[in-house]
Amino acid sequence: MSAGPQVSRRAALGMLAGGVVAGAGASRLGFQSSSGGDLGGIASERGLDGQQAAAALETYVPGGSYDEYFVFASGGHSGQIFVFGVPSMRLLKVIPVFTPDAWQGYGYGTDQGNAVLEGGSDPAKSNPLRWGDTHHPALSETEGSYDGRWIYINDRANGRIAMADLRDFKCKQIFDIPNLQTSHGGCFVTPNSEYVHISTMTPTPVTESGYAPLSRYKEDFRGFSTWLKLDPETGRFDLGNSFQIELPPYTQDLADAGKLTSFGFGFINSYNTEMAVGGDMTGGQPLEAGSTANDYDFLHIIDWQKAEEVFKAGNTKDLNGMKVIPMDVAVSEKILHFAPEPRNPHGIDVNPTGDYMCVGGKLDPHASVYDIELIKTAIANEDYQGTDPFGVPILTLESVLVAQVELGAGPLHTQFDDKGYAYTSLFVDSAIAKWSLGPKAGHTDDGFKLVETLPVQYNIGHLCTAEGDTVSPDGNYMIALNKWSIDRFPPVGTLHPQNFQLVDLTTTPLTVLSDTPIGMGEPHYTQMIKADKLVHTIEVYPPGTDPMNFAPSEFAIKAGEERIERQGKDLHVYMSAMRSHYTPDQIQAKVGDTLHLHITNVEQTIDATHGFAIPQYNIEASLDPGEVVNIDMLLDRAGTFAMYCSEFCSALHLEMQGWIEVAPQGVTPSVG
Amino acid sequence: MSAGPQVSRRAALGMLAGGVVAGAGASRLGFQSSSGGDLGGIASERGLDGQQAAAALETYVPGGSYDEYFVFASGGHSGQIFVFGVPSMRLLKVIPVFTPDAWQGYGYGTDQGNAVLEGGSDPAKSNPLRWGDTHHPALSETEGSYDGRWIYINDRANGRIAMADLRDFKCKQIFDIPNLQTSHGGCFVTPNSEYVHISTMTPTPVTESGYAPLSRYKEDFRGFSTWLKLDPETGRFDLGNSFQIELPPYTQDLADAGKLTSFGFGFINSYNTEMAVGGDMTGGQPLEAGSTANDYDFLHIIDWQKAEEVFKAGNTKDLNGMKVIPMDVAVSEKILHFAPEPRNPHGIDVNPTGDYMCVGGKLDPHASVYDIELIKTAIANEDYQGTDPFGVPILTLESVLVAQVELGAGPLHTQFDDKGYAYTSLFVDSAIAKWSLGPKAGHTDDGFKLVETLPVQYNIGHLCTAEGDTVSPDGNYMIALNKWSIDRFPPVGTLHPQNFQLVDLTTTPLTVLSDTPIGMGEPHYTQMIKADKLVHTIEVYPPGTDPMNFAPSEFAIKAGEERIERQGKDLHVYMSAMRSHYTPDQIQAKVGDTLHLHITNVEQTIDATHGFAIPQYNIEASLDPGEVVNIDMLLDRAGTFAMYCSEFCSALHLEMQGWIEVAPQGVTPSVG
Repeated sequence: MSAGPQVSRRAALGMLAGGVVAGAGASRLGFQSSSGGDLGGIASERGLDGQQAAAALETYVPGGSYDEYFVFASGGHSGQIFVFGVPSMRLLKVIPVFTPDAWQGYGYGTDQGNAVLEGGSDPAKSNPLRWGDTHHPALSETEGSYDGRWIYINDRANGRIAMADLRDFKCKQIFDIPNLQTSHGGCFVTPNSEYVHISTMTPTPVTESGYAPLSRYKEDFRGFSTWLKLDPETGRFDLGNSFQIELPPYTQDLADAGKLTSFGFGFINSYNTEMAVGGDMTGGQPLEAGSTANDYDFLHIIDWQKAEEVFKAGNTKDLNGMKVIPMDVAVSEKILHFAPEPRNPHGIDVNPTGDYMCVGGKLDPHASVYDIELIKTAIANEDYQGTDPFGVPILTLESVLVAQVELGAGPLHTQFDDKGYAYTSLFVDSAIAKWSLGPKAGHTDDGFKLVETLPVQYNIGHLCTAEGDTVSPDGNYMIALNKWSIDRFPPVGTLHPQNFQLVDLTTTPLTVLSDTPIGMGEPHYTQMIKADKLVHTIEVYPPGTDPMNFAPSEFAIKAGEERIERQGKDLHVYMSAMRSHYTPDQIQAKVGDTLHLHITNVEQTIDATHGFAIPQYNIEASLDPGEVVNIDMLLDRAGTFAMYCSEFCSALHLEMQGWIEVAPQGVTPSVG
Repeated sequence: MSAGPQVSRRAALGMLAGGVVAGAGASRLGFQSSSGGDLGGIASERGLDGQQAAAALETYVPGGSYDEYFVFASGGHSGQIFVFGVPSMRLLKVIPVFTPDAWQGYGYGTDQGNAVLEGGSDPAKSNPLRWGDTHHPALSETEGSYDGRWIYINDRANGRIAMADLRDFKCKQIFDIPNLQTSHGGCFVTPNSEYVHISTMTPTPVTESGYAPLSRYKEDFRGFSTWLKLDPETGRFDLGNSFQIELPPYTQDLADAGKLTSFGFGFINSYNTEMAVGGDMTGGQPLEAGSTANDYDFLHIIDWQKAEEVFKAGNTKDLNGMKVIPMDVAVSEKILHFAPEPRNPHGIDVNPTGDYMCVGGKLDPHASVYDIELIKTAIANEDYQGTDPFGVPILTLESVLVAQVELGAGPLHTQFDDKGYAYTSLFVDSAIAKWSLGPKAGHTDDGFKLVETLPVQYNIGHLCTAEGDTVSPDGNYMIALNKWSIDRFPPVGTLHPQNFQLVDLTTTPLTVLSDTPIGMGEPHYTQMIKADKLVHTIEVYPPGTDPMNFAPSEFAIKAGEERIERQGKDLHVYMSAMRSHYTPDQIQAKVGDTLHLHITNVEQTIDATHGFAIPQYNIEASLDPGEVVNIDMLLDRAGTFAMYCSEFCSALHLEMQGWIEVAPQGVTPSVG
């Protein structure tokens, strides 16, 4: 997609918008006489107007051709990550993260899935967690650009974070973050993936039991800004080099990392600085009223490089296994400052040059733009209008605000293109506002100014531009993440899909290219990366690989090394899988034995995945070529069970089957 | 889509196939001067050839326009049903069936999901089952046509079946079928949804313990053909009026119902009539070798109307709660006959007129066609070539076979159009064979004859034509369900998506319109129904509805009726949800209490779904407008927990939140 020619083509087609392709009947005859011109006839017959016909051609990706971009979307309370291609908007993959997935054998008895899921669920703290509410995916970055190595995502419900590896598109780690009951602020990575940031949403009771009455909200509840160190080799969370900053018990909302001119800073929005706790049946106000009383909430400005120094100097306290910089230290060390922001804002987004922090007003029709140079100066000058009830200094609004741009009703989130324009979602207006981002983004003449407004369908939350969170956005495409679809798709019952709309950023006015129903989750945010950056992705594991560390598994076998070893009640079966059989294909055991299956897919052919399933035992594994999977199962039920390959692999797939005899107590197992 | 004009347009475009739109550079200038003609320029710039550009226009469905067909696909071992639109191939909805789904709150603490999942998992028989391997969806029928009421689907892994209601697109019942450890044969419904059929795949040990050594395979293992009666009002399974027919311990494979001329019959393929059990490490043959020794296996022909009479006459035995017609009775009452079929066949499909049973050879390059008139005559004449080892009479092949058509390597499944053609998937050839279906399908001149072969990418399993399982297929579209995608999509790790290819049935030769990656499951079969048949679908529940029975819930409240009632340790909270608050929004409880949440979404606005989630307790609910959800939770963990709306509902969605205080033992709960 090149911007130039498309603008002119669009301009021509724009004239047709709203009507069926011009001169339908007559021109079809004409088209049929010119090669390729029959396209107009097809469009006409299908009732597509000129704009729609162009959109069809601009979004179609034939099989065997690849999309230009990958989109990584949170699945919301589905607990997953969805991977789409752009411009086709085809769903390429679902990556299970916080929720089990039977197709991928994630959480159905295999070592890898169980290790990840169980590792992310602290039995001392919670019931075994089998879901999460994924909100904000964050691709790893090098020098402020996506590098295609890892992706991080938060669990808004349970205050957790996860990492998936883009080598094999699988989740490798879930981390239950101390002191975060819930999370929203992040995750984002710093420009070289030094840290991934995540903060509380609702504040956490910091009493020993985790219980505190709401009457002690101000005293016993706290927010936390978490800076998780990333291992530069593995992308995993390095708790020992991570820290938190204590925050007041406001509701910390979205967050973003500084870059270039603002490198070293992090920014978090907040609301409910009123510290309302509801009580709608006991004389209180609903939270929606109580938390919207103040005209201003506080933009949190965090100097994470200073915080890192303080952490390294040991000026922290221990709290549930995490090193925490206390609020008074954060204030005295100038790590934490506030700036007023119009009430109950939502998104905070740093523009590609790093100069501007754009805050969506939510209950205010403006985007408020802060300038990092002004912020740095105001901090240096201690240009304070006072402190909040916890002693955090509040910079004067005038000293840091560079512009307020009236965009429309309900501005939420802002994204950026390659030409210095910003795009802000307007929830209440169901629209996207395009506006120029002032002199430091190249708009010296027009300054900060609304350019146009694009209606979307309906109730847009986040939006996402191509490489839009990096130092060098691509322009070209934008996705509107609409929360409601209402009438855009045929009825599929009482629960409606969301609606992703793909927008062509190269046209004036902006054009919606397609609507894509999202009927398997509720994405909140996405990031869009150039497909050619995913250079680390592999399609076949080296023989005998343990996917958790991409190293040879100690349980791997080659064909011919299959064996069964009994050690008391432990039965170790080293099994191979290849088209179209398991070796061994018979296992004799007794009730009370523990079966340890070590299965190697000995294939090295792309796409030669096998499954492994056992009836009645809730066991389901997916074995990609080269992969080793381990399954431990207590044989607590007698029976003769037909294990089978659950992934259609070959002409004799249905014959890829075996038997596990589990003899009742007192019965001698058959010898086959 | 009308067949006539499109054929001619296609014929013109076909000339361009393989090259970029003809005369790219020059003709683009020409196109730009004629309105709408610029489409050729866009196609050319994007590198689309004429065929691809036409396909783009023929598959694009703008937002707000609806697809012509719904496709219901099994998710394979994802345990779900996927709903796509045709021709756009957009995923409209995922219906969770055998596996929990957090987005829909299915299996995460709510009464409905838990009731369905737990109802389908017998603790006496199996571990709590939280997955299934969905294979063959079956839409309910009236007079042999889809009626848009219900859909059934089998769990191949655990021998279960489920029903989803197309009013709200939700699973209402999972039934763990006695005597079926695994299942494959079905499900299909009879032409008026009298019964849904499902049979065993691997045979079930019928000993009391469920254990039998493989050495007693012939004696102790049996297959079962199950005829589950459907309640004509609710679509639920009616066990009391259901029955099974005992079968030999072969592997019963796919099945289909007779219709029109073959109404009253059911047909099941089989393989492994050798009764091989593997033993590849103990001197035996792998099953893939042992089960392919015989030249012929047996097509099972079942007269279910006769079986119904025998069942009603009480000529059955009880087996684990199911009435079973013993094999000898099935033989003596002429309920069960066999016909030879080439070795290890796979699909059995009855054509729209009901006359022909088409068997895919799998290891034989032919489709074998049986004629119901010949079958009836042969049965009447007792034209037997002998009996199998269990005494089941085998009809002579010559007496029942009307044609064998050589199609290619690995024929599996057959579907049908509205012009008497059959389409058979060729797994080994990665192709679809189109062939004429003989005189009773209108082909008196050309008879049974291969017409053309369409390459697909790659390793096709099932295929599906529009309304293809009914008495009146639509033609128009076909979907190829390809098991491997290999290079058709960009790499997304070691586990590849499947590939659904949409095929235009109106063109000669056949044309592939699009490739759709399936990266969230492994569909086996689909059915395609006209979208306008889904007349029962609702978008909003009447106020206070219990979705399990579409009746008013006893726990429903209206706004203003919210209350908290304590009964000892049981705390009943009658809560309302509406934009943007819960009432009540504070709950005070103690460790050891049981919380009973009765939440009514009091909204009646389309798409106004709310969520309800509680951190650390694994609780996540989805509340569609009008819906009532009940959650019982033992408060075993102290803490103050931020419950919240997990489905973005409104401008103040983030403020839609409340608190649950769970005081530790010895602490008096706050009063708010």
